[in-house]
Amino acid sequence: MDRPARHPALDLTRDAAELTAQLVDFPSESGHEKDLADAVEHALRALDHLTVDRYGNNIVARTHLGRAERVVLAGHLDTVPIAGNVPSRLDEHGVLWGCGTCDMKSGIAVQLRTAATVPAPNRDLTFVFYDNEEVAAHLNGLGKVADAHPDWLAGDFAILLEPSDGQVEGGCQGTLRVLLRTTGERAHSARSWMGANAVHAAAPILAALAAYEPRRRVIDGLEYREGLNAVRVEAGVANNVIPDACTVTVNFRYAPDRSPEEALAHVREVFAGCPVDEFIVDDHSPGALPGLSHPAAKAFMESVGGSAHPKFGWTDVSRFSALGVPAVNYGPGNPLLAHKKDERVQTDRILHCEERLRAWLTD
Amino acid sequence: MDRPARHPALDLTRDAAELTAQLVDFPSESGHEKDLADAVEHALRALDHLTVDRYGNNIVARTHLGRAERVVLAGHLDTVPIAGNVPSRLDEHGVLWGCGTCDMKSGIAVQLRTAATVPAPNRDLTFVFYDNEEVAAHLNGLGKVADAHPDWLAGDFAILLEPSDGQVEGGCQGTLRVLLRTTGERAHSARSWMGANAVHAAAPILAALAAYEPRRRVIDGLEYREGLNAVRVEAGVANNVIPDACTVTVNFRYAPDRSPEEALAHVREVFAGCPVDEFIVDDHSPGALPGLSHPAAKAFMESVGGSAHPKFGWTDVSRFSALGVPAVNYGPGNPLLAHKKDERVQTDRILHCEERLRAWLTD
Repeated sequence: MDRPARHPALDLTRDAAELTAQLVDFPSESGHEKDLADAVEHALRALDHLTVDRYGNNIVARTHLGRAERVVLAGHLDTVPIAGNVPSRLDEHGVLWGCGTCDMKSGIAVQLRTAATVPAPNRDLTFVFYDNEEVAAHLNGLGKVADAHPDWLAGDFAILLEPSDGQVEGGCQGTLRVLLRTTGERAHSARSWMGANAVHAAAPILAALAAYEPRRRVIDGLEYREGLNAVRVEAGVANNVIPDACTVTVNFRYAPDRSPEEALAHVREVFAGCPVDEFIVDDHSPGALPGLSHPAAKAFMESVGGSAHPKFGWTDVSRFSALGVPAVNYGPGNPLLAHKKDERVQTDRILHCEERLRAWLTD
Repeated sequence: MDRPARHPALDLTRDAAELTAQLVDFPSESGHEKDLADAVEHALRALDHLTVDRYGNNIVARTHLGRAERVVLAGHLDTVPIAGNVPSRLDEHGVLWGCGTCDMKSGIAVQLRTAATVPAPNRDLTFVFYDNEEVAAHLNGLGKVADAHPDWLAGDFAILLEPSDGQVEGGCQGTLRVLLRTTGERAHSARSWMGANAVHAAAPILAALAAYEPRRRVIDGLEYREGLNAVRVEAGVANNVIPDACTVTVNFRYAPDRSPEEALAHVREVFAGCPVDEFIVDDHSPGALPGLSHPAAKAFMESVGGSAHPKFGWTDVSRFSALGVPAVNYGPGNPLLAHKKDERVQTDRILHCEERLRAWLTD
């Protein structure tokens, strides 16, 4: 394979901070990851201790050392749309600015550096680079690899190098979206007794939501916090018409000790007493248990130090969880800076993350 | 004034049914009433027993006979947009089809015929022809005359010849629209405890609406039925964001024994216990008392026969009510056929209406 024409080959002899800058200057907005995927494949194929597989723009590289455990390091190649913030810029305080610095080319750089500089790790390693994480779930490259080649993702423990401010975030909560529809009958509002008001029928739904007391649940020492919320309400035909339909969109975020089936049953139960004419499951992504009791995870926690935090939002760790691989987020960027025009990362945090991973994999 | 070029002059010697057909064939969609207003003015100025005034495309013609009472007969010249249903067509059952047959060129024809054929009525008469009734309230020609020349509309009793199926509809209900806004604080729905859900805050508003028991009220023998209804609900930022604002649009239709101030105070009271952050009066049109106890109205009821009905929707009778003139709707068309592509009117109902009015004004 020739190296990509428009950009220089990736230089894995540079440290992870310098490599991050090179990756940021190599644009790869969602849907346009091919050139960068080519460059990553090219760089990894040059490393004799790895076998490299490719599926679409998703690259998987593995050691085969016969170690007792296998660890997966994964990250997405794509970024949100560039907002005038490429090329990157390193300021006098050691902060690197630009699209993808935080989410998550610094994590990709740490993966590539680990691949290049730890040829004989104490655990077998699998490196995953995938596309389309920032867009619709059905396009997600990790999901596509999981469907087509689940064996490529096998392992005892997985780390997603998503921005987590250098702290371990364990598992993730599930998310269920349902549409609750009430129906009525239209009528002119001057003769409202001729109709039936679907908005008034929705009153018990809102009352149930307002009265709901969300659960907190400690798993592997991490406290998850659930939430059941209306995120949309829609009703209205005209200012003089009794509405014949009302839709309340409800989002249930649930701790990973609930299965998707249990979560759905719980939501049905909450609204069992309400006059819901249609109960539509609009979206459902299961949670992921933190898996911190696994020996590989324990050793990782000891090596990186600090304490783990629960992940409330849904992340791709759930895809590993679905394959039976406990997973955490651990990356150098500050997640609050992701997707922002002034996205940035402290370069010393990138180097710290690189050093901690290398220490864990070589001690 | 020359007669309009594109259409023949109105022929007031024809009966009201034939005149209706001529009027329907003289298009006058809202905003395009000038030619028809010119023709009406031209026809009325030919009648020596009337003085004629004009303001914009609004024509007012009056007798000055020194009678003890003055009665106003009013109707709008405009129609909704033509829907391939002009020119008019008279079928073998005596039904006249076409845009405006029902709403309300048949009423206009009765007014014109009364003006032409009752030169010495037992009550002084005021004929009002106005524009822009079918569009926004602020364009309404009757409202403009009421503002600029309220003396032109003075009288003891008014009849709007709007379609009422030949039955007297007394007064009208008031209509008040308010926006009830709750506010909260945005947060990612995975961390809902960081925010405050404005939709959940709206639960008591919907509960108050659902529990509300509307009043019925008999006035001058007519039973009015009130209604308090949500006509719209709007909230939603994104499927993963706790909404920070929710707006419930409420429409209160109230019996004309309530003043606008009392109606507003009542609605405020209904929602007094709810966490409403903004209470916005979006629209308010007062009701009109039926005024059927007035001697002129009583004589009119006796002459036309049948029993009066309450008018639930808002109509221009309220504009007369605001000027201290009790008013009713009484016209030949069936209101359910107004604004329809298959709009039509029975010609014998037009003639009956013409005959009843003439009888009352000449007995």
